[in-house]
Amino acid sequence: MNAALHIVLVGAGNVASHLAPALHAAGHRITAVWSRNLPNAISLADQVQATATNQLNELPAEADLFLVSVADDALPTVANALKRPGCVVAHTSGTQPLAALQGTSEHTGVFYPLQTFTKGRPLELANVPFLIEGPELLTQLAMQLSNNVQHVNSEQRKHLHVAAVFACNFTNHLYAIADKLLANRNLSLDLLRPLIAETAAKAQHAAPATVQTGPAIRHDDAVLAKHLELLADTPQWQELYHLLSHSIQRLD
Amino acid sequence: MNAALHIVLVGAGNVASHLAPALHAAGHRITAVWSRNLPNAISLADQVQATATNQLNELPAEADLFLVSVADDALPTVANALKRPGCVVAHTSGTQPLAALQGTSEHTGVFYPLQTFTKGRPLELANVPFLIEGPELLTQLAMQLSNNVQHVNSEQRKHLHVAAVFACNFTNHLYAIADKLLANRNLSLDLLRPLIAETAAKAQHAAPATVQTGPAIRHDDAVLAKHLELLADTPQWQELYHLLSHSIQRLD
Repeated sequence: MNAALHIVLVGAGNVASHLAPALHAAGHRITAVWSRNLPNAISLADQVQATATNQLNELPAEADLFLVSVADDALPTVANALKRPGCVVAHTSGTQPLAALQGTSEHTGVFYPLQTFTKGRPLELANVPFLIEGPELLTQLAMQLSNNVQHVNSEQRKHLHVAAVFACNFTNHLYAIADKLLANRNLSLDLLRPLIAETAAKAQHAAPATVQTGPAIRHDDAVLAKHLELLADTPQWQELYHLLSHSIQRLD
Repeated sequence: MNAALHIVLVGAGNVASHLAPALHAAGHRITAVWSRNLPNAISLADQVQATATNQLNELPAEADLFLVSVADDALPTVANALKRPGCVVAHTSGTQPLAALQGTSEHTGVFYPLQTFTKGRPLELANVPFLIEGPELLTQLAMQLSNNVQHVNSEQRKHLHVAAVFACNFTNHLYAIADKLLANRNLSLDLLRPLIAETAAKAQHAAPATVQTGPAIRHDDAVLAKHLELLADTPQWQELYHLLSHSIQRLD
């Protein structure tokens, strides 16, 4: 694929705001950006020399690719309003099946970058796995952005997304709990940041279950009991501590 | 502190096996290494030109520092057998109070490197927080190994350790769950490794609660219900999913 594509971005959230500049930098032309929230559409469109709108019926009639990157609950509304037979229409969701785009076009696909995107935090897309389903054009496009492009069907992607929630969203929440526990004692999360970095670094090469450390895997009941006692003020975290320790021991 | 210290290492586990070579490299003399398991004592002693023993009563009568790095449940036995008045005796445990060394010497302390140590995995100690309690000699020694040395009392250290279990041990277990969920579908954890790295990298600078992503924080009930359904085969992880999602929403 050498030709520059005309791409319409339907959505201006975390994912779209990372993809749009990357697609633009790869030489493609973003013709329009839509968002329910007009200032968001304008802000992103300005970065990539596109027009902005908050009206789905104002989107261009044609483009090589309509890339739909909206919250899952907005997808049915968008799909209903977006009829573009002859064009490729793809979404970027980890949870939605290909079928969620049914009726928009006969060339539907999925263009899912498996990463946690935060607006304003730059990210090297080159290492991000792009999970593709559907038209070859999507594979070609992903390969311009990343060295890690794979074909994954809707069924596999569903399970991948659940696993990602554990590895990313829940992990971040455990960091947040640690932060609050320290703040309660006037201690800073800075004390744990090297530990957080090393734990993730270790998992880059090892099978996590084989490098498990801590009192639960050692079956150190005295420490487990002490820790549960220390968490008495926050019963919801005490319950989590209990359940996670038990789960570690089951997997042993 | 310019003089080389004479140090006896009581223990040859993960922590001791990282500290011994670092102390040796900093110019100190490890005179002896004890471990319940003689081959472990010999293996570590050989690296630092020390003598090895599995008999506590064979340890040198004198040293500038007796560094006790044993499993928490072995600490009382060791402390009972180790009477070294006039010497500094310190332990490396995150969970044990200073008082655990009572009776060993009038100069007891804590020398706690807050990191996850895996035998055979090299680690840059320079960034590891060393949490010190007790004699000034321990602070000086830690500053030779690390740029991050802090004084933390026994009460604070207990809470730090609980927080570390959340941020490290439980986090690693979530990686392990993700790994198993993917293996069940013939998918590789490699797909999630960039996500794991980015999630930890994000927490190096941000307050974790402020960068939480995922279906729970979006209150995306449709996705949450789908994910719980997908976890029906593994009720213990379904329960964890439910509890962690609920906990994310409570912190919101």
